[in-house]
Amino acid sequence: MFRTHTCGELRITDKAREITLAGWVQTIRKFGAITFVDLRDRYGITQLLFGEELNKQLEENPLGREFVLQVIGTVSERSNKNPNIPTGDIEIIVSSFKILNKSSVPPFTIQDDTDGGDDLRMKYRFLDLRRNAVKKNIELRYAVNRAARNYLHQQGFMDIETPFLIKSTPEGARDFVVPSRMNPGQFYALPQSPQTFKQLLMVSGYDRYYQIVKCFRDEDLRADRQPEFTQIDCEMAFVEQEDILNMFEGMVKSIFKEVKGIDYTEPVQRMTWEDAMWNYGNDKPDIRFEMKLLNLKKASSVYTSKQDNVALINDASFKVFDEAETVLAISVPGCADYSRKQTDELTEWVKRPQIGMKGLVFIKCNTDGTYKSSIDKFYNEKKLKAIADAANAKAGDLVLILAGAEERTRKAISELRLEMAERWGLRKKDEFKLLWVLDFPLFEYDEEGNRWVARHHPFTSPKPSQIETMINNNPAINNAAEYLKHPYANIKANAYDMVLNGNEIGGGSIRIYQRELQEKMFAALGMDKEEQQHKFGFLLGAFEYGAPPHGGIAFGFDRLCAILGGSESIRDFIAFPKNNAGRDVMLDAPSTIDERQLEELQIRLNLKN
Amino acid sequence: MFRTHTCGELRITDKAREITLAGWVQTIRKFGAITFVDLRDRYGITQLLFGEELNKQLEENPLGREFVLQVIGTVSERSNKNPNIPTGDIEIIVSSFKILNKSSVPPFTIQDDTDGGDDLRMKYRFLDLRRNAVKKNIELRYAVNRAARNYLHQQGFMDIETPFLIKSTPEGARDFVVPSRMNPGQFYALPQSPQTFKQLLMVSGYDRYYQIVKCFRDEDLRADRQPEFTQIDCEMAFVEQEDILNMFEGMVKSIFKEVKGIDYTEPVQRMTWEDAMWNYGNDKPDIRFEMKLLNLKKASSVYTSKQDNVALINDASFKVFDEAETVLAISVPGCADYSRKQTDELTEWVKRPQIGMKGLVFIKCNTDGTYKSSIDKFYNEKKLKAIADAANAKAGDLVLILAGAEERTRKAISELRLEMAERWGLRKKDEFKLLWVLDFPLFEYDEEGNRWVARHHPFTSPKPSQIETMINNNPAINNAAEYLKHPYANIKANAYDMVLNGNEIGGGSIRIYQRELQEKMFAALGMDKEEQQHKFGFLLGAFEYGAPPHGGIAFGFDRLCAILGGSESIRDFIAFPKNNAGRDVMLDAPSTIDERQLEELQIRLNLKN
Repeated sequence: MFRTHTCGELRITDKAREITLAGWVQTIRKFGAITFVDLRDRYGITQLLFGEELNKQLEENPLGREFVLQVIGTVSERSNKNPNIPTGDIEIIVSSFKILNKSSVPPFTIQDDTDGGDDLRMKYRFLDLRRNAVKKNIELRYAVNRAARNYLHQQGFMDIETPFLIKSTPEGARDFVVPSRMNPGQFYALPQSPQTFKQLLMVSGYDRYYQIVKCFRDEDLRADRQPEFTQIDCEMAFVEQEDILNMFEGMVKSIFKEVKGIDYTEPVQRMTWEDAMWNYGNDKPDIRFEMKLLNLKKASSVYTSKQDNVALINDASFKVFDEAETVLAISVPGCADYSRKQTDELTEWVKRPQIGMKGLVFIKCNTDGTYKSSIDKFYNEKKLKAIADAANAKAGDLVLILAGAEERTRKAISELRLEMAERWGLRKKDEFKLLWVLDFPLFEYDEEGNRWVARHHPFTSPKPSQIETMINNNPAINNAAEYLKHPYANIKANAYDMVLNGNEIGGGSIRIYQRELQEKMFAALGMDKEEQQHKFGFLLGAFEYGAPPHGGIAFGFDRLCAILGGSESIRDFIAFPKNNAGRDVMLDAPSTIDERQLEELQIRLNLKN
Repeated sequence: MFRTHTCGELRITDKAREITLAGWVQTIRKFGAITFVDLRDRYGITQLLFGEELNKQLEENPLGREFVLQVIGTVSERSNKNPNIPTGDIEIIVSSFKILNKSSVPPFTIQDDTDGGDDLRMKYRFLDLRRNAVKKNIELRYAVNRAARNYLHQQGFMDIETPFLIKSTPEGARDFVVPSRMNPGQFYALPQSPQTFKQLLMVSGYDRYYQIVKCFRDEDLRADRQPEFTQIDCEMAFVEQEDILNMFEGMVKSIFKEVKGIDYTEPVQRMTWEDAMWNYGNDKPDIRFEMKLLNLKKASSVYTSKQDNVALINDASFKVFDEAETVLAISVPGCADYSRKQTDELTEWVKRPQIGMKGLVFIKCNTDGTYKSSIDKFYNEKKLKAIADAANAKAGDLVLILAGAEERTRKAISELRLEMAERWGLRKKDEFKLLWVLDFPLFEYDEEGNRWVARHHPFTSPKPSQIETMINNNPAINNAAEYLKHPYANIKANAYDMVLNGNEIGGGSIRIYQRELQEKMFAALGMDKEEQQHKFGFLLGAFEYGAPPHGGIAFGFDRLCAILGGSESIRDFIAFPKNNAGRDVMLDAPSTIDERQLEELQIRLNLKN
């Protein structure tokens, strides 16, 4: 060992001990003939004191930032204590030292507030990882990993490794593929998830499986997506939806407790997909704050069970509202005093292409009881008050109203709701609110192909009461315009998402375990028998030999860590992330390979330009 | 939940409880109007009794093997108890039942002694995994995983995930590569190990890292190799070899204790590579038994520090020995009474192409004190006795002697030693003997290229005392015939292998952490500056910024599990293994992919025939 102690370990009780430390030079401060060095390692920082007698040696062997240094010395009480660090009461009177390795001047400072930009930090990720801010994230990630494993172990789950070199069955996302040298012309695929394997393990009787496992999707990378990412992947047999919900809210609560010290004792709130969309415009609502939507109109064909409030805006001859498919309002607390400049800025905000609205209507609920609106000429104060009341606005609040096509408007008001909450500090990083969203539609309509696609994935079971509907109806959509009237449009899935502070952190479903139903599902998605057999013959085969009822869930591990760490970016929680072009800029990967490698694989490049 | 209890849980103390079980039908036995069913799940087997009143229902819904069954019933004391299973005192008087899923007749029996051959079991791996014999292996694997993680956690190691999509730097083995769609013409590689990443993590200061992680090698598969395999991968900073040896024999002992209940209290034996080769003919000797080699001659240029026993065979004019580069003997206990047929069979055994010897010499040390040999006409009894004595033979033992070229003969006698031990039951599956093999040569000589290759890998450090030798000498080999006289031939590595019962289960080294030395190593392996920069620029760069001394080890997780499970085959310990052609016969992978996928990746097939 190059050390007897770490740099975070020594206390005043160690006074007078002779010790050896090793670590990195964080700072060097000279005071006349004395030199102070802060020595850093994974565990902390310890102050070293080089007295006069070592000065000559220091002059011959000058230290620099990030040098690797080993010192022998004696623990001594500091005269000038530092209460901010655990070792702040002591310093080491150095008796001898050895430079274990030198360092060039690092391209950015190894500090929480570094001067390195994103690109530079990624290129020198091995230095970036030294910064305390990044180290905390990696440590948190390990703590979450450990907490999840411990909980799942206690609950009887087994970590069973599934293969990485599997078969390409492109459904939703694109597969990464791997040419097989031993089977020329053939390819493995990297798993987008261990979905079918964990189902097979249920067929095999391993009734509680988990894995913290890398998954791969070759997608055009949006911000904060990675081509390889990590899931906490779980599956259980002989369970119903309720069992899964209880088991995994237990897991997340256990992680909260272990990692953050938070006792999340209240039951996790539950909400149907329809309620989430209706009240928040979003299937992963942030419920740390209210600000629910007021649905003034509803699109004629969706949310059929819901009551609109169209009476409030009728008979005013305001064409924007009259002609809009959907009109939605939210009430923002305490913003009635917004200036013209501020409301104009908000209007510009909703007109940005990412939001895509044509304009913004507001009603100021003044503290004096009056109402002022951008649509005063269509609505008198009584009407404005009625709308504001319906939107739960109080005196001093600002009601914001968007109108337009159903899908876009709902998405826009949802974004506006989050933006206003952000501005008003309602999205607190240290507050955690979990939510189960339930009863998703089983299918989505694909306009281009005039066909059904699986909203979750093709292995998700419909609600038990709707299995007959699915089996007994032809999935073909004869009249595209009226697809919502097809019996499949109303089939709900036995699926569930776990939402944390407005982010989907996990999702899963009760699976199909009957061959007939699985074949019907594949057929509904446009797969003929031959394709079914080619791609999923092994699974259909397995369902022939005693498949038990089963279901599961997968958590986005990177995302979960990021939210627990109070960050929006998963990249900060991955030791060696890739950039938005899927490149590792430190390694400079991907890269070209040797002609000989291509030869051996019996492939060649076919570049388009 | 489809059950209140598992099939392994109920005891006589549960008598009279109403319970619900779910599981698979293992056996059905009819006795007149009564039917007994053994219901199986992951946890055990429980006997069900279907009385007369359920008979009609059973006739309408006949059960079959592997049907998934749910029953409600009452726990009752058995009249005919089965002491062989934990639930053997009770049975369930079934009051109602439901067939959750039917099963076709499985293609082989779900029993320890199955009638399924290897191919059939692999094709229906999901059924094979139901067999208790396989389940025990998967459970053992999880137990090893858990024990390793717990030990490493207690020792302050952090599980840090390293990337799977990295850069191709083919050195020893071939990389699997992954075409990048977003970077046409470029490829990722799948990691052969996280070697460089764990070293970077040491540079980053995370001084105790581990991962249980998949690795990939595109090699022509020998028996019991898998293209994807799992390592327990570890690295530590600020350590010397001794620290690593202590830390990781601690880990393996902890696994023994947790998984097998074995207190392995004695220190792990240590042996230099030279002693291992000299005394056992092998760098991973099985030391559960002695049977050391007697080196009658030694090759002129290797094992220079060792004394031969050439005096014993001199002056006999036996050309086979006189002309052989190497003559080696072992003494097999209690085999002096081997018949002519048996010695002939052994002779045939060493002549097989896998062993490749021209013949076998034996000396029978008869219990009456006489000696009988196949070379009686060259050696008198006194000489024979002297050889036998030197080989540690006692009365009743059989001395076996091989002669020939050094490398082949040493390998052959090593194989013969293992074979004889196997035949004599000296390789006990429930006896575990660990061994550290140390002081490997740093380089191996590559005859074809007349150059050095790294015996372990290019990141392994020479012994500290030999760093100067390495730095100060030109690696070029001017005289191929005398390569053993090159200073590099005698450089020993700071490397170590852990051997368990004659299998290498782990290997590692203290790493190079100085840029100059690493560049010298790359140069010694024939890499010019440009290639070094292209392939390992990130690592050389990292060594510029304060790299600490560090070292590590990687354990072959599959192999470790197999040995602990008393098996020779790693495949039995992998849930979904591939066959010797690298195929997953259950999935039928690898497989062809769509033309569209190839188009998107901008590659095309280039099949040779």
